[in-house]
This record gives sequence, C-alpha cells and structure tokens, in this order.
Amino acid sequence: MNPETFSPKHFLWSFQDGVARVALNRPERKNPLTFESYAELRDMFRELVYVKEVKVVVFGSEGGNFCSGGDVHDIIGPLTKKNMSGLLDFTRMTGDLVKAMRTCPQPIIAAVDGVSVGAGAIISMASDIRYAAPETKTAFLFNRVGLAGCDMGACAILPRIIGHGRASEVLFFGRSFSAQEGLDWGFFNAVMPAEELEAHAMKMAAKLAAGPTFANGITKNQLNMEWSMSIDMAIEAEAQAQAICMQTKDFLRAYDAFAAKEKPAFEGD
Amino acid sequence: MNPETFSPKHFLWSFQDGVARVALNRPERKNPLTFESYAELRDMFRELVYVKEVKVVVFGSEGGNFCSGGDVHDIIGPLTKKNMSGLLDFTRMTGDLVKAMRTCPQPIIAAVDGVSVGAGAIISMASDIRYAAPETKTAFLFNRVGLAGCDMGACAILPRIIGHGRASEVLFFGRSFSAQEGLDWGFFNAVMPAEELEAHAMKMAAKLAAGPTFANGITKNQLNMEWSMSIDMAIEAEAQAQAICMQTKDFLRAYDAFAAKEKPAFEGD
Amino acid sequence: MNPETFSPKHFLWSFQDGVARVALNRPERKNPLTFESYAELRDMFRELVYVKEVKVVVFGSEGGNFCSGGDVHDIIGPLTKKNMSGLLDFTRMTGDLVKAMRTCPQPIIAAVDGVSVGAGAIISMASDIRYAAPETKTAFLFNRVGLAGCDMGACAILPRIIGHGRASEVLFFGRSFSAQEGLDWGFFNAVMPAEELEAHAMKMAAKLAAGPTFANGITKNQLNMEWSMSIDMAIEAEAQAQAICMQTKDFLRAYDAFAAKEKPAFEGD
Repeated sequence: MNPETFSPKHFLWSFQDGVARVALNRPERKNPLTFESYAELRDMFRELVYVKEVKVVVFGSEGGNFCSGGDVHDIIGPLTKKNMSGLLDFTRMTGDLVKAMRTCPQPIIAAVDGVSVGAGAIISMASDIRYAAPETKTAFLFNRVGLAGCDMGACAILPRIIGHGRASEVLFFGRSFSAQEGLDWGFFNAVMPAEELEAHAMKMAAKLAAGPTFANGITKNQLNMEWSMSIDMAIEAEAQAQAICMQTKDFLRAYDAFAAKEKPAFEGD
Repeated sequence: MNPETFSPKHFLWSFQDGVARVALNRPERKNPLTFESYAELRDMFRELVYVKEVKVVVFGSEGGNFCSGGDVHDIIGPLTKKNMSGLLDFTRMTGDLVKAMRTCPQPIIAAVDGVSVGAGAIISMASDIRYAAPETKTAFLFNRVGLAGCDMGACAILPRIIGHGRASEVLFFGRSFSAQEGLDWGFFNAVMPAEELEAHAMKMAAKLAAGPTFANGITKNQLNMEWSMSIDMAIEAEAQAQAICMQTKDFLRAYDAFAAKEKPAFEGD
Repeated sequence: MNPETFSPKHFLWSFQDGVARVALNRPERKNPLTFESYAELRDMFRELVYVKEVKVVVFGSEGGNFCSGGDVHDIIGPLTKKNMSGLLDFTRMTGDLVKAMRTCPQPIIAAVDGVSVGAGAIISMASDIRYAAPETKTAFLFNRVGLAGCDMGACAILPRIIGHGRASEVLFFGRSFSAQEGLDWGFFNAVMPAEELEAHAMKMAAKLAAGPTFANGITKNQLNMEWSMSIDMAIEAEAQAQAICMQTKDFLRAYDAFAAKEKPAFEGD
C-alpha cells in the first residue's frame, strides 16, 4: 500500500506527515459498518504492519458521529438467515478487525464524537488512545439486540480499561455511558468540545509521529503480549524488548540531544 | 430445585417473574455466615445452572445489613481447633461458593446495605452488579483477624474491579471503605438511599430477566473464561460464543422488532 | 544481613521496630540511580526474603524528591556504547530489581515527594502502597529518551493499577501525571502535605508491622502469583494459602483477643 495514493472504497483515508486518518463515511446513517467496510478495514490495518511511512493512525468521526455499529439492514438482517458456518465467518471477520488494530505497530487514536455504539464502541475500545466530545454516547449495546456482550473481545478488553464491575454493568445492560463517565472510568483519555476534537487528535498524533516510532511499536506490542503473562515473564520480556530499543539510533539521538541541551529529533529507527 | 417451592434452611429465598431473591437472615448479628449457610448457598448456586426459570438472582440485605462474614463463635472458634485437612475442607468450601456464584449463568445483583465485611464483602465482590446504600461499610478484614487477604479469590478478583493499588491497600490493612469510595473505585455500580436499594435492585433484575437471558449467561461465561486468556485467544473465543448467540430466536426477535419498529420481547432462547 | 548494622554503600538505610527505611541519596541531582545502586537495591530486596526481623519497608524521598531515574551521565551514556549482550545484562538487572521488590514478603510503602520519573516511577509502581505529596510529578518518560514504555514490567503492571487506557496514554506519550491524577486513577493510595508524608508512611508501616506479618507476606505472594491464573485456579490457590495462615498462632491470637474483648497482639508467626 502506498499511503499517498491509497484510496479505499468503503471509508475515508487521508495521509500527511506520517499520520493517516481513517473514518467511516455514511453520515446520514451515523456511519454504520457493512460487510465490505469491515473487511476493508481489516485488510488495511493488517497491511499497515509493512507500511513504515505511516507512524500513527487517527480513527475519526464524520458528520458529528463516530460509528453506529453493524448496519441493521446490511448486516443484522442477512445474519438472521445464515447457518453456523456463515455466522462464524462473520464473527471471526469482525474479531480479525480488532486483532489487526491491536497487531499493527502504529498507535491508534480514536476521536469519538456523537454516536459510538455496538461495533463502533468496539473500534474505540480497540484503539490505544481515546478522545471524546462531551455529547458522545458510547454503548456496547449487544444485549439490546439479543446478543451477548462478548463481541470482538469486549469481555476481555473492556474490564481491563474501566474495571470489571463497570464493564459487567455496561455489557449486561447494554446501557450507554456519557463522555464524562467514560473519562471518570478511564475509557476516554480526555474530553473536549466537538469543534476541537479532530484538531486535538491530529496534534497528539503529530506528537507521536515525531517520537521514537520504532519504540512506540514495541510499546504497543508489549502491551498486547504481556496481557496474560505472569509478572516474572513480563519483566523478562521487557528486558529483551527494551534492550532491542537501546540499539536504535533514536536512543543515541536522545542522548546526544540531551548532552547538547537540544530537543531530540527522532527518526523512528 | 423448583424455585416456586424451594425452601432453604439457612437463608431467605423468594421467587417471582424469573427473579430469585436470596438473603442471609440473622439480622440481630448482622447476618453472619455459618458452616451450614455456606454449604447451602454453594449447593443452591450450583443447582441454578439447571434451573432455567431463574433468570437473575438478587442477593439482598436484611435488617439493614448485608453480611458480617464468618461467625466468630460458629466458625472462627471451631477453625482454631482444626487440623490442616479440616482447614482445607473449609477454605475449599468457601472458595466453592465463589466458584458457584461465578459459574451459574444467572447475573447476580448484590444489594448491599450496612455491614458487608469478610466473607460478606467477598459475596458482593463475587456478584456481577453491586448497588449500595450510602451508609454501607465494606471491609476485606481478613488481615485484622490474623489471616491473609487471599480469601475466596480476593487477591485475583478485587484488583480487577478496583485496580491493583487500591486492592493492595484494602487487603493489607483490612480497612473498610465507604459507599462513596466504592463508587469512585468502580466497586459499586450505583449508590442510592437505603429505602430505595432493594426496589432498585429488583427493578434492574426485572430488566435483565426481560432481556435475552441465554445471551446474558454467555456474557457471564465469557467474562469468567477470558480472565487469563491472551487477547487473540479471547477474540476467537468470542467469535465462537457470539456465533452461538446469533442462532438464538432472541436475535431474530430483536431484528423483527426493529423492522416493525417495536420493542423486542425476548424469551431467553 | 543484620538489619541493625546493615550499611549499604549506595542508598540510605535505617531500621527500627521492624520497619526498614531505604532512600536514594544524591539530592543535588534528585536521586538518580546508578549501575551500583540498582545492583545493591536488587541484592538487598533479594536478601530480605530471609530477614524475618524486617516486617515492612518504606521507600522514602530525600531532599524533596523520590528518584530521577537512571542517571544520564552514569547510565544512559555508557548504555549507548554497549553491545546487545551488555544491554541485556542491564535491562535484566533493572528488571531483577522489580522482581526482587515483588518477591520479598515485606509490603513496600513508597513515600513519593517531588520528582519520580523513569526508573523512579517504576520503583513506586513496584511498591505495594503509594503515598504522595501534592507537588509530586510522576513520569514513565522512556518514550522521551527514545525508548519503549516496556521498562521493568511497566506494560504489564501499570495497566492493572490505573487501567489500560490511562496506562497507554502515559506510556506512549511519556507525559507526567500529577499527584491528584495519580490519586483519581488509583496509582496513589493517598495524597498529603509533603511535611507529613514520611511520618504518615512510617505510621502506616508501623501498623503493618504490628499486624500478622506472616499472613501479610502470603497476601503479597498471592497478589503476585494469581496475576495470570484463571479464576478457578486462583480460588484453589487461595484455599491452600489461607489454610496455611489458619495454622498460625496469629489466627489463634486474634480469636482469643476477640473472645476476651481485647485488641490482638500479633507476632508474625
């Protein structure tokens, strides 16, 4: 993939100075997901592993909303007619989107405005950093459409972000939570006026893109890998991972800049 | 067990419209546990796996208190005289109560008023949703009776609910925390006046009982099962679990209701 | 090691009434770590496993600061010249300090004033209880020196203390957080004026030292051991661990004191 010319069919893409921005774009229906956009997003995040020019991804909102989840007509309807094999194909594809978001080395910043429900809430959950507008409503609403809360990793990941008790309530009732609740619970990293949201996300993405991006990818990898390791195993894994980072030029650049009383200029290698 | 006629010897039981309510009932001593009530509660939660009519359990308070833990005279005294085999029989029985509470598919709502200490605090911790009255005092006080904080799963479960740092303090000092602290920390899902507590718990239980209860059981199962899985394993486990839920009639009912612009009437199958 | 006469070369040590106090002591440079102090701290915490007279450790601040992390001149400079084998020796040594802090049975209370960054932030993270002065600044700043956030267990341990979303932000940006943020997030257990900090830490340490210290060591062990166990495994592990504690005299002392309406005098056996 060439990030300068990449032109996906089912979502928006833009790229500048190491920062890619993606967003769903059917604002008249609050940006639902379809079979096609799920698959194309999965493929894109998988490919980003090899696209070194992309340092950070911002997953933005369009038309005042983030994502309304799986489209009722395009997805839920057809699913009610599938057999088990077809259903598992679907749930594995959606799970693969989360796996791809977690596996790509680029930190993902979600800029969440308006509606963020169902698979939309999952996309924000699977991101690394989450900013929200005050009016945002987030709902892991699977329970309200007759399903379980265990969708795309929610029963594993959400409790680690907001605590097991709050995650249980949110998943059993499918109830939405506000931006303020999300901030208090540690789901959102910051809340700001909607008109500042995208600019803030892009500013913070630029900050990450100007950092030691190889090391950032290692940070992300270790956050994933150490999920279910013992403490001792995790410490050994980090000893190895950090020793690798100490052989990057960025580490040397930071030291030289410090000695020269300058700001380091990282290059990601 | 027939929930309509079930009549336990060592705790209160009532059942209506899919919601069972249990409560310890020795209010003059703030509802301590005994060898007998431990065992009967364990057996009851184990049996609930097969009692489809019970959709939700409320674990309530009586006489203004939830539970004062293991009775000093009936339990602590005899324990000081047991050999290792007898002690292990006891600690395994108490652990089996928590296992049974986690294993039954019914979500458990704790309505915590007044004193909730020792094994009482554990019972609230092992529930899925926790509501409290403002005057509630919760203490994992094992340290104060000469024991370790590792009782009935507390060193594993409490850190996931309130964070590892707060759990460490609470377990090392055995200090009680208030309803407000419990709310701020994510232990309690909501705090309300004592006189509204049981009604609120029953109202929320009715809401769960009117939901897709088969799927709720899967949500609970996955919250347990994914506890120590890697992220990738958890996502695959959820792909399978959710595909199962997509073959329930409740999923179809939700879709049909949406298409007809009605509220879905779930039946739990 | 005799705690009465122990005289480390690279940090302060004092000991009274079962409570040891350690602190780095190069206040003119905000107490940086060196290769030597890392190694001596690691050896000391390892040896504490066998030093029964030490019941609790307070890791204090000196000159208004906790620790400024790895010294730029003494550590970072030399590291930029090491080969992979030498780098791994270093990252394993620093990781071994955290392992030793987690493995010693004594609860560790960090009293964090002023600067607490890099490996300093890690030392506070690896402690069991954390108190802070209002002016404290904590930064896992590895990203700012060209490294990954995965240092000495941070990607495993920090998310369990403050939640995965907040930990991600703190590690990806290397940004400092305030005492108030640390309190709100569950990193600090309490915040108090700097002039009361050490006295409070010593008072709470004395409280722990007067408790059932054998059982406290079991609590700490189980908090570590159950990190990545399944719920069922953790409950069985606790059944065994608590049965062991029920054979201590401290358990009997607590019961006898209760029966006599006295305060128990624990002796740690």
